[in-house]
Amino acid sequence: MATVTGETCATQETSVRHRVSPLLTDLYQFTMAYAYWRAGRHNEHAVFELFFRDNPFNGGFSLFAGLSDCVQFLRDFCFTHEDVEYLRTVLPSNTHPDFFTYLKTLDSSGVSVSAVAEGTVVFAQVPLLEVSGPLAVVQLLETSLLCLVNYASLVCTNAARFRLAAGPKLRLMEMGLRRAQGPDGGLTASHYTYIGGFDLTSNALAGRLFGIPVAGTIAHSYVTSFTSLEEVCPKTLMPLRGGDPVELVPLVKDWLGRVCQLLGANPQQVREGELAAFLSYAIAYPCNFLPVIDSYNVSSSGLPSFCAVALVLCELQYQPLGVRLDSGDLCSQSVEVRNVFRQCSKHFSVTAFESLIIVGTNSISEKSLSELKKRDNEIDVVGVGTHLVTCMSHPSLGCVYKLVEVGGRPRMKLSEDPEKSTLPGKKAIYRLLDTDGHPQMDLIYLSEEPAPKVGEPVTCHPLGSVKAVQSITPAHVTSLRLEVFSQGKIMHPLSSAYESRVHAQTSVQALNAQHKKLEGPESYTVAVSERIHSLVSDIRRGNS
Amino acid sequence: MATVTGETCATQETSVRHRVSPLLTDLYQFTMAYAYWRAGRHNEHAVFELFFRDNPFNGGFSLFAGLSDCVQFLRDFCFTHEDVEYLRTVLPSNTHPDFFTYLKTLDSSGVSVSAVAEGTVVFAQVPLLEVSGPLAVVQLLETSLLCLVNYASLVCTNAARFRLAAGPKLRLMEMGLRRAQGPDGGLTASHYTYIGGFDLTSNALAGRLFGIPVAGTIAHSYVTSFTSLEEVCPKTLMPLRGGDPVELVPLVKDWLGRVCQLLGANPQQVREGELAAFLSYAIAYPCNFLPVIDSYNVSSSGLPSFCAVALVLCELQYQPLGVRLDSGDLCSQSVEVRNVFRQCSKHFSVTAFESLIIVGTNSISEKSLSELKKRDNEIDVVGVGTHLVTCMSHPSLGCVYKLVEVGGRPRMKLSEDPEKSTLPGKKAIYRLLDTDGHPQMDLIYLSEEPAPKVGEPVTCHPLGSVKAVQSITPAHVTSLRLEVFSQGKIMHPLSSAYESRVHAQTSVQALNAQHKKLEGPESYTVAVSERIHSLVSDIRRGNS
Repeated sequence: MATVTGETCATQETSVRHRVSPLLTDLYQFTMAYAYWRAGRHNEHAVFELFFRDNPFNGGFSLFAGLSDCVQFLRDFCFTHEDVEYLRTVLPSNTHPDFFTYLKTLDSSGVSVSAVAEGTVVFAQVPLLEVSGPLAVVQLLETSLLCLVNYASLVCTNAARFRLAAGPKLRLMEMGLRRAQGPDGGLTASHYTYIGGFDLTSNALAGRLFGIPVAGTIAHSYVTSFTSLEEVCPKTLMPLRGGDPVELVPLVKDWLGRVCQLLGANPQQVREGELAAFLSYAIAYPCNFLPVIDSYNVSSSGLPSFCAVALVLCELQYQPLGVRLDSGDLCSQSVEVRNVFRQCSKHFSVTAFESLIIVGTNSISEKSLSELKKRDNEIDVVGVGTHLVTCMSHPSLGCVYKLVEVGGRPRMKLSEDPEKSTLPGKKAIYRLLDTDGHPQMDLIYLSEEPAPKVGEPVTCHPLGSVKAVQSITPAHVTSLRLEVFSQGKIMHPLSSAYESRVHAQTSVQALNAQHKKLEGPESYTVAVSERIHSLVSDIRRGNS
Repeated sequence: MATVTGETCATQETSVRHRVSPLLTDLYQFTMAYAYWRAGRHNEHAVFELFFRDNPFNGGFSLFAGLSDCVQFLRDFCFTHEDVEYLRTVLPSNTHPDFFTYLKTLDSSGVSVSAVAEGTVVFAQVPLLEVSGPLAVVQLLETSLLCLVNYASLVCTNAARFRLAAGPKLRLMEMGLRRAQGPDGGLTASHYTYIGGFDLTSNALAGRLFGIPVAGTIAHSYVTSFTSLEEVCPKTLMPLRGGDPVELVPLVKDWLGRVCQLLGANPQQVREGELAAFLSYAIAYPCNFLPVIDSYNVSSSGLPSFCAVALVLCELQYQPLGVRLDSGDLCSQSVEVRNVFRQCSKHFSVTAFESLIIVGTNSISEKSLSELKKRDNEIDVVGVGTHLVTCMSHPSLGCVYKLVEVGGRPRMKLSEDPEKSTLPGKKAIYRLLDTDGHPQMDLIYLSEEPAPKVGEPVTCHPLGSVKAVQSITPAHVTSLRLEVFSQGKIMHPLSSAYESRVHAQTSVQALNAQHKKLEGPESYTVAVSERIHSLVSDIRRGNS
């Protein structure tokens, strides 16, 4: 299949993106930090965990994303003089002045982070990030880390679901910038939908920053800006393989007549402005001709105009790319368009028309994409905007960041809502794979417990299950998290967006079919060790 | 009512926010700009309009927001050397090198913008921004302007609806940073929900950048980080009006015993860690004591602990502020809490307990807020996060940016979907007010037409209506838009967030009740002049 015009892949990521301010957090993080500092507890060693409580989109899995943003935020974490002066104006007036001096000394040199790899399939309740370090510092990090993980993981998961709905061959293009939550929302969407399985973005800055292939040709405004063929300028084009420039206006009029005759279309109904716009664009970019053809009417104007201009290009040895449909019934129109391409190919003996692509962009949702796949259609590339970036059917992942240990003591929250309770203690997370390598169960252990061993049965307690206890003999055991940040430093080179995308696709592929079903998936088992189970009981009884 | 602790209002806006890159746009803007440039049309004078097609949330109105971001973006609009070098790598290889030189010369000195004031009530189909200038430049601006207006207006409208649901007295606090689309999404949300009618934000950076009052005290992690009263440090507090430091641990134990006796509570069920956390925070911030009281159990632990510590503070002449509830049934709990406050006030003769406030924060939506208002409750402040910032029930406004005139010729798009058609021509927008000053109808005229006059009947064509034509005699006529940007310069000082908020509230207040109803509002009339109506018919017939 031909590529979409303009598509390219920058080879390196740059660092043009802005630093996230450590003030980008909730005020209560500072009042708490102050209270810890006042009590002399600010340097107590604390452990927080970041996790979410339910898979989004009524799905069976999620993808973890946002890690590279988190570790870059951590590496750069420090307060400027101006930050601290602002805090002085908003914290209660009796805040001790030495606290502001203390804030100016803070950095992430005492912080360690263990995390799941960017783009890994993950499940509800499993701690994805473990952040440990001085109590006041790791408390201050809460909101920023949540902000960086929540939407990244949500939109990455959404993209993975669109990819599953689309199947492996249909190309997917993200074009949601104008519908995202402001500039950074749009960048985050482009970055993480690519990791989740999209192929292209319309967002030029995302292309520059993350090396994502970018694509795009023309919009309706370009088409409607033309009125007549007199506006076409220059009016000539050199054939691809050389020769004298050719006058195109008479040529395109001639081809339009022949196309209309072939299709039984009325040349009077062809908008001259649309034909002029197509011709003008083709002269500017003869190797990248892919116009939007529904500015007026596809059958009577857009399609005959496209064919006429594309045939002109073919005559001059150029390969036109295809068309974009942006309204109406995409399936039936794509079939009509493909038939016309085949008629032209046969009648005018232009094999180039056999490889033209059809791009569809019209409020595509996961549901409409699934439906589209079930119907006859000839669409090669789907562009998705609003439904993808707003995650319309489930617009928040609801990640939380909870204290699980301080000063070596396991901690938990009970709450008025049982589902808002947390799991106490510093942990290790294991993923058991079945004999075929599919993820089978995630096991949450205390970090001090010995790891489960292949072939040795373990007893565990599935979360959210009526089954009180379960025994399983692991076939393969993998450790789910890795230390990614320590003593103020990023421990491993950051994955490029491309590398994370490959990992994400591999990770989704490895899932059992019943867990990756888009509707009615089987629930994946996440279980805790007997020791954690006992610890929870102890704390509930008020013994810890 | 007492203020929420930590609340403050910085008096000036700073400019710490990052410049929006002109690369934050769709690639097709560049391919189109090239094609215009190649055809020598790049400097043709063009007029684009930004509008949306439906009011969000099934509502009867919207608020326009994002204008100050737009004009700042325009003022700073230019491409860096690095931007242009990146574009060289992604545009088709036959792009003429002179085009990149041309890009480096671009700025907004030829651009003019006429716009509705930030925070004004607006309606679907009405052009909110008119952007005019050289065709290639105003085309390049499309995606960035859409990105800056779409979410700002949506979330501002959402906030205004929460304000209407809450009534004028209930204080509203935005706390959605962790659930927004990344850092900038969170900032945009805090900024524009304040303009829409919220009183406070938890977002410290938004406080710094926009002068929004910020608030916050403590989270569950602070509470669960304590185990025993031994961790309280320092253990003494000076009375507010002077005197020797007082040992607080024996005092709080004494008060806890008296409170438990009064309430019939079991002191054994009080979590010592929770009591210690409250006491420790109260020592740090004795004038700002407002803890979250549901970390374990409100009735048996959180509430008695709060009362004991608050009574200690009262004994030392401090005024405790109140409590926060974050789970369970907020209404019934708030009533229980208020009753306990009244019992304590009466029994212990502490009038300070009469003015304690109750903050509720638990997945509040517009619907649950409306329901809460109908039930008995004692909540003074509501904190809203996810539902507010994700605009869950309608997560995209769907603004579009359409070419309406080029080289003095009116342009329009017809499309396969009739509702995607546009209105041609450069326009003037008038709002007619009824004799009581309520908005009655928005009239869309061609800019060359004389304005409607008070007392003189005008004939117009309501949009989306079966009524083909209507006659109305205006009582008051106002011009809805103002020139806000011209020749590269911002024409009026930017409104502060506070000023825009006042304007927004006045604008919503002025609406007729039937237009601001949250459910089943009456549709507001937007009509076009006879001249526009004729122009549309001409273009549909292919005559323009």
